Amino acid sequence: MSRAASKAGVNGAPRLAIVGVGLMGGSLAAALRKARFVDRIVGVDEDPRSLEAARGRGLIDAAQDLETAAREADLVVLATPLGALPGLLARLSCCLPAHTVVTDMGSAKQSVVEAAHALGLSRFVPGHPMAGGECSGPMAARADLFAGRSAILTPTEGTDEEAVRTVRAMWVAAGARVILADAATHDRLVAYTSHLPHLLAFACAELLAGYAPAEALAPFTGTGLKDFLRIAGSDPVMWRDICAANAASLAPALAAYAERLTGYSERLARGDFEGLLRHFAAAQAFRADLMHRSTHGEH
Amino acid sequence: MSRAASKAGVNGAPRLAIVGVGLMGGSLAAALRKARFVDRIVGVDEDPRSLEAARGRGLIDAAQDLETAAREADLVVLATPLGALPGLLARLSCCLPAHTVVTDMGSAKQSVVEAAHALGLSRFVPGHPMAGGECSGPMAARADLFAGRSAILTPTEGTDEEAVRTVRAMWVAAGARVILADAATHDRLVAYTSHLPHLLAFACAELLAGYAPAEALAPFTGTGLKDFLRIAGSDPVMWRDICAANAASLAPALAAYAERLTGYSERLARGDFEGLLRHFAAAQAFRADLMHRSTHGEH
Repeated sequence: MSRAASKAGVNGAPRLAIVGVGLMGGSLAAALRKARFVDRIVGVDEDPRSLEAARGRGLIDAAQDLETAAREADLVVLATPLGALPGLLARLSCCLPAHTVVTDMGSAKQSVVEAAHALGLSRFVPGHPMAGGECSGPMAARADLFAGRSAILTPTEGTDEEAVRTVRAMWVAAGARVILADAATHDRLVAYTSHLPHLLAFACAELLAGYAPAEALAPFTGTGLKDFLRIAGSDPVMWRDICAANAASLAPALAAYAERLTGYSERLARGDFEGLLRHFAAAQAFRADLMHRSTHGEH
Repeated sequence: MSRAASKAGVNGAPRLAIVGVGLMGGSLAAALRKARFVDRIVGVDEDPRSLEAARGRGLIDAAQDLETAAREADLVVLATPLGALPGLLARLSCCLPAHTVVTDMGSAKQSVVEAAHALGLSRFVPGHPMAGGECSGPMAARADLFAGRSAILTPTEGTDEEAVRTVRAMWVAAGARVILADAATHDRLVAYTSHLPHLLAFACAELLAGYAPAEALAPFTGTGLKDFLRIAGSDPVMWRDICAANAASLAPALAAYAERLTGYSERLARGDFEGLLRHFAAAQAFRADLMHRSTHGEH
């Protein structure tokens, strides 16, 4: 079989294997199918109910075990929690055809890059789409989850350039804007823009749990709190893994945040409300700028 | 004029004056007009552009100064930032007809209750709808802002019962569920469910501002951060006033939160990720329960 023929299925579209058919993997399947980017999508998942649900919704064409799926795929997308990635990469390294491209959707990149490097996987392209949701599982999947969102790729010097082009094309087909960054920079920035906020939301929800029963707090819960706590609805296991993988960047971000809170607390204690106003005004202005820039071009 | 006749306009519906025709006051006007609860709505605002916009959108029928509006109204709703309330109540106490009911929408209640008590305003009914938005001004007003949300009323022993019935009927007409609470309990609970989260969101946005420029962070900004920071888009002056009015309840809530963050930080530092998982799982479960209870019955 020639390389060109091996690169695609009968219609010239790549054969895709998605490992982990939850919200993220299922949404990617839906988006790529809608964009006619793929010929055939095979799902791999430890949970047979997820596979059944994904098949029932038409997200995947068939379910296979990891090794079989990898051998028959042109592109393997790992859409599992971060903690599962090193083990999956090790298993793939034993059975992957030479042409097959692998990418992931993990929220921290340095640990994955190191694992792939140690295994000599030059056609592994580390990726991270900046999208998600507090609902998990294939029933929550939707074709527009990545539309207008960033998909960060963090290839290293050793990453195959053709593999990068393939993964870039996949994300463009899913509606995302592709950004290249190095893994260390990615991890430092997402510690601030994603990992810290999740930790803060979990801590707030836990504080409320310790303060009063849900039925007592419910009437005092507005739409503001609802939005603020949405990310505290995220999968705890996924976030344990992210904290473990990115503790080096998350710890200083958390310390810097705690220091800022101490400043607010001191102003509150001494009745310096004009000082608080200056903080709030600076925060509000920066948020408006950030949101404007990050939603520009969003659908 | 008999008391019954003085209680309502030509169609038997109360004549309403709304002081502050921004998001909150404008939305109430829209909701009450849609529900045909009111005969005529007069707007009072320091900003002539807000009055013009509110009139252009059909939220108010006319603009008047506070004293004239109060003299001709059956029901006066104060929808200004908290800091303006004591001054407004003092001005109203000089010119309010005996039958006229006054209510407010302030996010902290004890300070307002004390101000009204000192002025002998027995027909003032302290209120707080659990709704809002990061957009302000009459152009952001919408008739469904309060639909399915709580409206907390905190009358005291001295508050006129008929006045409470009037304000309750107003909020029911606007689609809200009315909850009665005492002002101190209200202030303690909203310190946790609303005031602390706003402070946390402002602090996070300010931390990001100090860490990197918006254009560098924008590609790393997902939908999670967008929701988390939505409340940091709230009006800084309004939040300065709320912090000033409820510092006594907010300070211990902030201290309890900081203590919880220290616990997270210590687990992160010693690599206790299973400990973090337990925190996250407890947080996620409580959030799900709280959200289920607080949105039950919401439209």
